[in-house]
Amino acid sequence: MAGKRVLIIYAHQDPKSMNGSLKDAAVTELSSQGCQVTVSDLYAMNFEPRATRKDIVGALSNSKSFNYAAETYEAYKKGALSSDVVEEQKKVQEADLVIFQFPLYWYSMPAIMKGWIDRVLCQGFAFEPPKYFEQGLFKNKLVILSFTTGGTAEMYFKNELGGDIRYILWPIQHGVFHFCGFKILAPQISFAPERASEDKRKEMVTSWARRLATIWDEKPIHCTPSWYFE
Amino acid sequence: MAGKRVLIIYAHQDPKSMNGSLKDAAVTELSSQGCQVTVSDLYAMNFEPRATRKDIVGALSNSKSFNYAAETYEAYKKGALSSDVVEEQKKVQEADLVIFQFPLYWYSMPAIMKGWIDRVLCQGFAFEPPKYFEQGLFKNKLVILSFTTGGTAEMYFKNELGGDIRYILWPIQHGVFHFCGFKILAPQISFAPERASEDKRKEMVTSWARRLATIWDEKPIHCTPSWYFE
Repeated sequence: MAGKRVLIIYAHQDPKSMNGSLKDAAVTELSSQGCQVTVSDLYAMNFEPRATRKDIVGALSNSKSFNYAAETYEAYKKGALSSDVVEEQKKVQEADLVIFQFPLYWYSMPAIMKGWIDRVLCQGFAFEPPKYFEQGLFKNKLVILSFTTGGTAEMYFKNELGGDIRYILWPIQHGVFHFCGFKILAPQISFAPERASEDKRKEMVTSWARRLATIWDEKPIHCTPSWYFE
Repeated sequence: MAGKRVLIIYAHQDPKSMNGSLKDAAVTELSSQGCQVTVSDLYAMNFEPRATRKDIVGALSNSKSFNYAAETYEAYKKGALSSDVVEEQKKVQEADLVIFQFPLYWYSMPAIMKGWIDRVLCQGFAFEPPKYFEQGLFKNKLVILSFTTGGTAEMYFKNELGGDIRYILWPIQHGVFHFCGFKILAPQISFAPERASEDKRKEMVTSWARRLATIWDEKPIHCTPSWYFE
């Protein structure tokens, strides 16, 4: 949809990887629709994942003990967050849709992307009680997790050792994004590209592009425990 | 138990924090039992959370495309992992019990600790199919998650917005530690210390020390979906 703004938070070390191809396909498809697409290429940016005192410019509110959440909340209100965090917050603020593109590392996102979550989504910017969940600050934004797995789809069923793939989406989709008010579109899961043929890999990329062609018509999931656990 | 070795992976920026006190209490109690206790103080070490090419010393196996998991597996076998990763692997290898001490950040561990997981627990060292889960390489080791939360215990019930606290333990306890074979002891959850009185906070620390006094007698949980979701 012309005029829509999309932010892609992308975490892979190699542009020629499957994740790189999925990211490129999204940029191409969404740009061709007239969307304005921004990519945060976390490894290329050498994005800082550690939540430290350096994220606050100038004096702390409490110099006796360091509480990261409290200090970044105060710094946000004063405009005293470090510039790399502010830069990412601006991109989120402008986005209608945020796509997280990453390989699954240990049933979750890679640390560099978790660091983006920890540092960018501070109180004041991303939530402000009682503004969370349905009343959340980002209730007019959409989010999609698009990720690759090491295991095949068959390994992620309820009664398999891997457990249902939805189990691992709860902390991220519900705990992070729903908490901030985002409407959550169904995840795009590219299972086990490393075990797949070149044709199958290409098909994964094409099917992602095909889905994005009508992404603005999609309805969000009902982000309640029953979606994940029943 | 005299002679047992304990590794504490600790992620808080401030030694005077609740997490710092819980870590100190564990060091004191376990040392008094005659255990050999090692602490990896991740922020003090400025531990690198990003999984990059720098983790492999010398040439890559595949110079055309960079696959972190494949390259670190090869590097592990050749003894070509970066020294900070090797250092942590030695500590894990020697440990009978590993304690992860952290504040819950966004329904998960802080990025600096996720980076420890991503980088230290590489294939060859932490798992080697079909050696995982009950046949896992670390089947003679115990692990405990000890963490603080922002929300109170009441917020983490099945029908509350936060959902059952066990939901968020699945990716970590099952997906990381059980996968590598660890036996999992029940988590130690210190709920909402920031909202608690000084007395309550002290009681949280004391009850952790008290639990550790008999920790070697504890039976591991049954790490199956029913523990988490039923």
